[in-house]
Amino acid sequence: MTQMATFCMTNMREEVMKLNKMTISNDTVNDLPCEVGIKGKQSYYLSNRGNAISSRHDIMATATLTSIRNKYDEHDNPYGIINIGISENKQCFDLLKERLIQKDMHHVEESHLQYADWRGHRFLREAFAKFLTYHCKASSPLKTENIVVLNGGGSLFCALSAVLCDPGDGLLIATPYYGAIITDISLYNNVRLFPAHTSSKIVKGTNRPFQLTVQTLEKGLRNAKLEGIKISALILMNPHNPLADIYSESEMTEFLEFAKRNELHVIVNEVYMLSVFDECETFHSVLSFDRIPDPQRTHVMWGLSKDFSASGLRVASVYSENQDVINALATLGFLHGLPGTIQYQVTQLLTDEDWINTVFLPTNRARLKEGHEYVTHILRELDIPFLNRHAALYLWADFRKFLKTCTFEEEIALWNRFIDNKVMIMCGKAFNCCEPGWFRIIFSETASKLELAMMRLKMVIKEVEQEIQAENGLCSCRQNVTGNLNSEESNGAD
Amino acid sequence: MTQMATFCMTNMREEVMKLNKMTISNDTVNDLPCEVGIKGKQSYYLSNRGNAISSRHDIMATATLTSIRNKYDEHDNPYGIINIGISENKQCFDLLKERLIQKDMHHVEESHLQYADWRGHRFLREAFAKFLTYHCKASSPLKTENIVVLNGGGSLFCALSAVLCDPGDGLLIATPYYGAIITDISLYNNVRLFPAHTSSKIVKGTNRPFQLTVQTLEKGLRNAKLEGIKISALILMNPHNPLADIYSESEMTEFLEFAKRNELHVIVNEVYMLSVFDECETFHSVLSFDRIPDPQRTHVMWGLSKDFSASGLRVASVYSENQDVINALATLGFLHGLPGTIQYQVTQLLTDEDWINTVFLPTNRARLKEGHEYVTHILRELDIPFLNRHAALYLWADFRKFLKTCTFEEEIALWNRFIDNKVMIMCGKAFNCCEPGWFRIIFSETASKLELAMMRLKMVIKEVEQEIQAENGLCSCRQNVTGNLNSEESNGAD
Repeated sequence: MTQMATFCMTNMREEVMKLNKMTISNDTVNDLPCEVGIKGKQSYYLSNRGNAISSRHDIMATATLTSIRNKYDEHDNPYGIINIGISENKQCFDLLKERLIQKDMHHVEESHLQYADWRGHRFLREAFAKFLTYHCKASSPLKTENIVVLNGGGSLFCALSAVLCDPGDGLLIATPYYGAIITDISLYNNVRLFPAHTSSKIVKGTNRPFQLTVQTLEKGLRNAKLEGIKISALILMNPHNPLADIYSESEMTEFLEFAKRNELHVIVNEVYMLSVFDECETFHSVLSFDRIPDPQRTHVMWGLSKDFSASGLRVASVYSENQDVINALATLGFLHGLPGTIQYQVTQLLTDEDWINTVFLPTNRARLKEGHEYVTHILRELDIPFLNRHAALYLWADFRKFLKTCTFEEEIALWNRFIDNKVMIMCGKAFNCCEPGWFRIIFSETASKLELAMMRLKMVIKEVEQEIQAENGLCSCRQNVTGNLNSEESNGAD
Repeated sequence: MTQMATFCMTNMREEVMKLNKMTISNDTVNDLPCEVGIKGKQSYYLSNRGNAISSRHDIMATATLTSIRNKYDEHDNPYGIINIGISENKQCFDLLKERLIQKDMHHVEESHLQYADWRGHRFLREAFAKFLTYHCKASSPLKTENIVVLNGGGSLFCALSAVLCDPGDGLLIATPYYGAIITDISLYNNVRLFPAHTSSKIVKGTNRPFQLTVQTLEKGLRNAKLEGIKISALILMNPHNPLADIYSESEMTEFLEFAKRNELHVIVNEVYMLSVFDECETFHSVLSFDRIPDPQRTHVMWGLSKDFSASGLRVASVYSENQDVINALATLGFLHGLPGTIQYQVTQLLTDEDWINTVFLPTNRARLKEGHEYVTHILRELDIPFLNRHAALYLWADFRKFLKTCTFEEEIALWNRFIDNKVMIMCGKAFNCCEPGWFRIIFSETASKLELAMMRLKMVIKEVEQEIQAENGLCSCRQNVTGNLNSEESNGAD
């Protein structure tokens, strides 16, 4: 709380009160782009596909747009939206900036300004191979030839789903999941996600809420077959988004064995692997396993967006032992290419072991821990249960008792209420969570903004609590909550 | 020829002779990536679509790869391939580098490292709007809201064809055309190019070889209908690639009126608009027209790849009055996003009017003119006819008399012979030219490389001439050539 305490609480309360009194423009997320050439609900200028693309403004993308358009700024827009809904690490800009403006970054070679290998320049892929070998504790050195680097994780999901799936195919994924994947895989490719639903209830064979098991995956696969959908691949995320769960090596091996038995490709997204901020936690990359069950069908993603606080740099890699997959991705690479100068800068960054290991990673972890401590402290104050993990940039919290009825309409209403009060957290609906009332809160924001954001959130919660009390009773949703989370989960006591 | 003369001719001849004697590794373009999991000719690890993508190594892409893998370097690989086949401007690296390492380029803001508007940061789109308004001589100021900036022209073609066409639709385009467009529009989208064939013969209603007319477009459209293919849009390129023709305002207006009559969108690619290097030539951007026939269906592309010698920076824009199209492109933008820091640097570049207008553009034009003069001088020496234009980075030359038979097999054989002799020019087949024997030669290479490349080319031509003479007669293809090009075209006398 040291860093947090620097922000004057009195001033903040005044600010929040002002905010509460001001006439708020309605930022509610219905703010879709205008349409000029309308036929029915469609534009007659676009193809059917174009209309489908244009109407695919998913919750997360629309929320991002809304918060960008009315972005909080301490001086220029103090009543703008503070975005602690989109997963970005905003705590380490000072470190990144300091490194990116160093003299070695300003080098330009002729080849950087020319067409190059669409898998990424060799020097970049070599840097990724070396970096991942070290940080994933790879069982043997990763090979440059087996890496493709594209402009962001979304592009990788898009390209991977194009080469692994035919139109109409499905990708099996456990809910809740990072919702933007839907757009990544479907916009160009007509591939769908097929959900394997987990539950907040701790049932037989599980010891934590929303725990993924092989049984859940098997059930998901069976359901897909019943619906006539061919599942081509399984998507796994470790550390998980939005749960922040870290799967153990044995759990991951079980999932990979399940995939092997069913001849499914596995896309393993380890994009938060360096954002584990407690020494008690151990992350095991799939690339560190002595034996990957089906290496030719296992493709591991990592990028700079989360672990290096650089979502705006658009750099992500995939490692695969399968040269056919790599070749196919290389063919698509020209549609997702990275500027040569950025490839050079990222190479400088990833090969600066000293800066990474003694400056960036320790500082980043300390700040993540501090942000996590602050947000969990407020949640405890408000008696809001949450999954108390020590990884990633967010936590998954249980707001069910603040829904007047246990419906997604109420969840969205609560969400919009937060947004109207200029704080954006992300509703469970955006993650295809099958139970209404869960929200993801980002804690990797700078201290002052995080404190103001949580203050705004607190204000909404207090109002809602009063309204619920005034209605003389607890809502049905609230009644269902008790017992779903054990004490370890609900108060984050570990 | 001043700059060219600095390279010692004696040394070069020695080098070429050495090259000729050495045991040449076969660089012939059959060098496709290896496949590991084969089912028939397909990989059983990939989907059908993945296999189709993987096997779509078009001539141009494969040629690029081949020349990258064995790239000429004066010191490190003197017997590598000199690539004057792929359209890149390599003459201005010194200018670009000097500008890109200036202090103003090293600025990093927090927003550059975060998710942003997928159309491009506002500051970038403002810079494009201002730049294009000035350089296109726009009839009224272009609007920031009507611009989308993505990572390269290929991505723009991909995104535009996705939103304007449904699977199976066609895009009408005159032959010869820049062949890589096929990959741009088809890899993800299942959209095809439908050719409107032009001819090297100057027939009634035309005054130059391969001249595009409305009649040709109408015939193309009729043929598409006969084949049951829905044409959604027309692609126009001005200055043209590979012909380097500059369409007049009245020609362009006729084409746009044709599109309007047939309710076709028009994608106008003006990516070479600033590479017009003779004061006698005037380029008229569609954006300068007082009246665009169908502004809601007219979409104008420009980018940094050609005019700013920066194909490796991956920056291209589209301007459209149609907000539906802009919105749909914005939705796809996250798959083709540009790093925020690059967006900032490009903004600095495009708004540096002084550098652009007094340093870069005049120097670039002078160098293009010099390169053009040098290559045309050699072609005249070799009695090789060519279209004598004064725009773009290349010229279109007639090698028909060097084909032993008038077939594409012979064209490819000649092409491979050039490559085996370490000079890459681009064969007409790569442009879907309907007559074998035409090649595109890039002249925007540095003086020493261009001279060595043309020397290697000359050597092949001399050998082929001797072989043809030894066969005691002219081939049928050669006999057909006479009279196809008038003296202005064949000797470049204008």
